[in-house]
Amino acid sequence: MKNIAIVGASGSVGTQTLDVLRKEKGIVLSGVTVHRNLSVLKDIIEEFHPSAVAVTDESIKVEAEELLKSIGFRGETSFGSEGLIHIATLPDTDTVVTSLVGMVGLKPTIAAIENGKNIALANKETLVAAGELVMPLAKKHNVRILPVDSEHSAVFQSLQGSKHEEIQKIILTASGGPFRGKDQTFLKTVTREMALKHPNWVMGAKITIDSSTLMNKGLEVIEAKWLFDVDYNQIEVLVHPESIIHSMVEFVDNSIIAQLGAPDMRLPIQYALNYPHRTRPVAKSLNLLEISKLTFEAPDRETFRALDLAYTAGKRGGLQTAVMNSANEEAVALFLENQIQYQEIVEVVEQAMDAYRNLGEISLEKVISAHDEVKTFVRNKMKR
Amino acid sequence: MKNIAIVGASGSVGTQTLDVLRKEKGIVLSGVTVHRNLSVLKDIIEEFHPSAVAVTDESIKVEAEELLKSIGFRGETSFGSEGLIHIATLPDTDTVVTSLVGMVGLKPTIAAIENGKNIALANKETLVAAGELVMPLAKKHNVRILPVDSEHSAVFQSLQGSKHEEIQKIILTASGGPFRGKDQTFLKTVTREMALKHPNWVMGAKITIDSSTLMNKGLEVIEAKWLFDVDYNQIEVLVHPESIIHSMVEFVDNSIIAQLGAPDMRLPIQYALNYPHRTRPVAKSLNLLEISKLTFEAPDRETFRALDLAYTAGKRGGLQTAVMNSANEEAVALFLENQIQYQEIVEVVEQAMDAYRNLGEISLEKVISAHDEVKTFVRNKMKR
Repeated sequence: MKNIAIVGASGSVGTQTLDVLRKEKGIVLSGVTVHRNLSVLKDIIEEFHPSAVAVTDESIKVEAEELLKSIGFRGETSFGSEGLIHIATLPDTDTVVTSLVGMVGLKPTIAAIENGKNIALANKETLVAAGELVMPLAKKHNVRILPVDSEHSAVFQSLQGSKHEEIQKIILTASGGPFRGKDQTFLKTVTREMALKHPNWVMGAKITIDSSTLMNKGLEVIEAKWLFDVDYNQIEVLVHPESIIHSMVEFVDNSIIAQLGAPDMRLPIQYALNYPHRTRPVAKSLNLLEISKLTFEAPDRETFRALDLAYTAGKRGGLQTAVMNSANEEAVALFLENQIQYQEIVEVVEQAMDAYRNLGEISLEKVISAHDEVKTFVRNKMKR
Repeated sequence: MKNIAIVGASGSVGTQTLDVLRKEKGIVLSGVTVHRNLSVLKDIIEEFHPSAVAVTDESIKVEAEELLKSIGFRGETSFGSEGLIHIATLPDTDTVVTSLVGMVGLKPTIAAIENGKNIALANKETLVAAGELVMPLAKKHNVRILPVDSEHSAVFQSLQGSKHEEIQKIILTASGGPFRGKDQTFLKTVTREMALKHPNWVMGAKITIDSSTLMNKGLEVIEAKWLFDVDYNQIEVLVHPESIIHSMVEFVDNSIIAQLGAPDMRLPIQYALNYPHRTRPVAKSLNLLEISKLTFEAPDRETFRALDLAYTAGKRGGLQTAVMNSANEEAVALFLENQIQYQEIVEVVEQAMDAYRNLGEISLEKVISAHDEVKTFVRNKMKR
């Protein structure tokens, strides 16, 4: 029997994790957090009976307490960022699923690691902003960082049974997003609604926008660098519009191992929760006859500049990836609020990277303080 | 330092194994056999300095002895089928590459196993005819049967780090051969020259004909059954004309792991020789951008009846696969001698399978006696 906690249970990955739990009778849900979705929280409590819950939006504390009382919840209840930490560090959990979106995931992830929890990592921003700190910490506390992103899960699955020094190259596949084949002129016309439609995956709003700009792939490149301890020149991005090969590893003998599957996040979630075992399917079987064709093309780095920005930030090192990530987080928020144009996202990210280029050595405090500083920079820059 | 012997060094896999050895400085060639190609034998001795050689065609014994004397070869020399056994059991070898074509590979493979050698198996007929005997023998002597066929190497590589009970399905890919898309009427017109042209792989004559009839894929299905200890209904054949995905494994969670690479036999040979390690490349790197497209289709089982014959033989069990294999070996020989029509290959194989359906329990003696009996049956049946 395995005990898990979900930090960010009402989002896309959180919801799909719950769906995996419905089919995995050997996994017990010890704790969950939601931001402010009390209706989801109620359903989770009634279905999974977690012993601890947290609501991070403190403005609805009273309402939340009333609800929990009304349904007779007798477990621990906590609120705000302390609530996140509390759920991430429950004594009886083995694995914490970090499915928060954005930098807010960093602190609970670190707290979980320091408390010896394995991490099923869906919050890629944690590694993008602070991989240089988080990976050694995980090593020190002897915990696993198990990727939940479909691409990184594919790499992780492809690496099973191999040795680190045998990795030649990691090939991250990318759908290319909804604007594949378009040019810069077209991108100037992109609206919020257009960018929120992803061809293959159903995901949250922020990651859907990131997918459309290829910033998501850029973040994944950085995530892969830390997860798999390789150099940036060992990570390649290959556009594969069908999203069937979820990523590949080329080994030193030029043999490639790839993982394929239906585009269903529940498969990587299930793999992370059961690792190193595989159990009965949650995702559908892949029908390659029906698909009949897999195609590959180079990413258009001129139109989708975010990808190269991520490589640049990664190679610059230190706090640059944190800066890029924070700037992107704020710029995407502004775009979703209809406050900036689509193409301004990548422009302001680049400006932030240049403005905050010399922040010295990385530390957790600096990552956190830079986050707020960079967000303010972006917001001010974009003020009309 | 690893010592290997090659049983069947002048054929296609033998030659490519030598090419791997040119780049693998840590592997020493202890012994080789050739059938009657003394010019290749001379080159091998001068380049690799094996300590023992054998020539299996005893009719050229005098000529061979003169050659070996003329080049000052001072190692052991042996001849005929005893020579095969001798090279397969040299005391200082770790691994024997069995690259003979046909049933002649069975005895030396068994001798090698009984002498504790790991087998790099290119002679698929060994497992087709006697997998039920060979696999337990390998287990008993604690030796590895390492597949050299590109498909089985792909499965083997895809299985690394997994557990047997996690295998749901093995998906063997097939190029479809030179007559993919043709119908039975067309097959009636196929000549020796037409059948000897394979679209993707350069191989020996027998396996090239087998590839064109899909009998090769049928033999591979049976080989996979024994190598990976699965049921026939867990083995699927998928036509993939580009021969880039060399095969795949679907696990119980519906995740698929696949191995991809350039169509170059030296890669699986190298993997088998170095297993469980991977070393510097012999084969070229795969350029998926250049390939740009991978396609899949169902095998045409009505036109290429050999595939279903193999499943039928496998499911019947016992000596049926040996009978099928021997009948096919003889029929292909007759076709290559221009003595029978292309479509008669599969017809006579089916007749032999029905004629020798009740041979009782399998034993090595019976496999060997059935081989001669079935060959005679085929030759008599086809007499004009």
